Amino acid sequence: MPDRTVFFVSDGTGITAETFGNSILAQFPAKFRHVRRPFIDSADKAQTVIEEINATAMQEGKRPIVFITVVNDEARTRIETQCNAQVMDMFRTFVEPLETELGVKSNHRVGRFSDVAKSQEYTDRIEAINFSLAHDDGQSSRNLAQADVILVGVSRSGKTPTSLYLAMQHGIKAANYPLIPEDFERGAIPSSLAPYKRKCFGLTIDADRLSQIRNERRPGSKYASLLNCRYEIAEAEKMMKRESISWLSSTHKSIEEIATTILRDIRPDRLIY
Amino acid sequence: MPDRTVFFVSDGTGITAETFGNSILAQFPAKFRHVRRPFIDSADKAQTVIEEINATAMQEGKRPIVFITVVNDEARTRIETQCNAQVMDMFRTFVEPLETELGVKSNHRVGRFSDVAKSQEYTDRIEAINFSLAHDDGQSSRNLAQADVILVGVSRSGKTPTSLYLAMQHGIKAANYPLIPEDFERGAIPSSLAPYKRKCFGLTIDADRLSQIRNERRPGSKYASLLNCRYEIAEAEKMMKRESISWLSSTHKSIEEIATTILRDIRPDRLIY
Repeated sequence: MPDRTVFFVSDGTGITAETFGNSILAQFPAKFRHVRRPFIDSADKAQTVIEEINATAMQEGKRPIVFITVVNDEARTRIETQCNAQVMDMFRTFVEPLETELGVKSNHRVGRFSDVAKSQEYTDRIEAINFSLAHDDGQSSRNLAQADVILVGVSRSGKTPTSLYLAMQHGIKAANYPLIPEDFERGAIPSSLAPYKRKCFGLTIDADRLSQIRNERRPGSKYASLLNCRYEIAEAEKMMKRESISWLSSTHKSIEEIATTILRDIRPDRLIY
Repeated sequence: MPDRTVFFVSDGTGITAETFGNSILAQFPAKFRHVRRPFIDSADKAQTVIEEINATAMQEGKRPIVFITVVNDEARTRIETQCNAQVMDMFRTFVEPLETELGVKSNHRVGRFSDVAKSQEYTDRIEAINFSLAHDDGQSSRNLAQADVILVGVSRSGKTPTSLYLAMQHGIKAANYPLIPEDFERGAIPSSLAPYKRKCFGLTIDADRLSQIRNERRPGSKYASLLNCRYEIAEAEKMMKRESISWLSSTHKSIEEIATTILRDIRPDRLIY
């Protein structure tokens, strides 16, 4: 039984409300029941949500927590004044002081994604996703010159989801290349990568964790055995050291954390735009 | 020349600070220069950033705007008191009132991603990404029974990035299947989809836009011609109507907006968890 119900009410997708709300809620040991209500962009729609929130308060005997990102003034004011809830209004709290600081009125646009489908930034993101897909798992060495970063590491060290995340969220053209036993025997990174060593970034992982992940795919195989995982990882780390490729361990990191670290190390210019 | 410099200072990846900050900044017509400073988790690191912020204020003759998500009290207090800047502190503003509401102290954990790599939710997301990759562009009909949603539409209507976004952000197993001229001639959706019609969701797109996108790939081809794009789209929409498949137009929508709409329509339970 969750401790409290949380509503995310937005006039757009609600992604901003939810991301922000989750970062706040993560500070508490309580369990929350999440309810998302996107596209609430009129007073009428707000009214329906208010009734739902108040019914929840009554039923549960506890006020819900409500994160809102709604710019329609009437809808917003109704939610703030008519809800039996703890309402967290990110716009009123932060947009209004910023109007004073900047000396301009906000244009109260709806959501950060409005018209985004036409923007250059958005087009770049889509193009980066296509690039990363075409260059997943060493599928293609064509156009590697255009890659922003090339992730290298043993099979199942987290290269694919990280590449896709870099592309999707940051518009980074991220290729990825597996390091395989043949590379270790030859004692060199795949030859197609040699001209692009400066763009390579390594991922490594604890052997125990790797063996566990590989066993889910191919239970009991040599590929998944702890002994083989230890060997591959040791060889991969040795190679990355020898080739002076920066690397990190993905074992205790989410793809978001890995991506941020890579950006900071390999494309620090992307931290400023 | 941008109107103002904005710093995103965080003890984690800074994703929360930036997402939230951008939603606030989008309300203003001004141009901003973005500077990201992730992993600021000590008073020492905070000091370096404070000096950078104050140097910027001096150089530009305008106070920077600073969005912070930092839970370390000493680092946070220093930034708030020593910066010549408009500081927006999401934690102090919202976490503290919530402590009162819930009647518990927050545990001041660092970031929403801490330990996430071990959580079930995270594992589900990674598994969903693998599923969506394996079921991209009709590559495989195996395990379609496990799909949460199957996106259908003509080539280049936005299925692939939407599938990956649904997987990455929502842990949704999203397959996607192209509708091709052979399907239109036969007058039926691909036979492997027939048992799963209830899970299908269609994407359509304006013919002008589709022709433009396809021309970037294969300039001057029949595939990219406006006439052919019109034909394919008309046939695809006819098919979706006949098969009672919900659909939307991706033309003016970002993948985030498309994904939210799909979740609401096909997996409304995913709006509550």
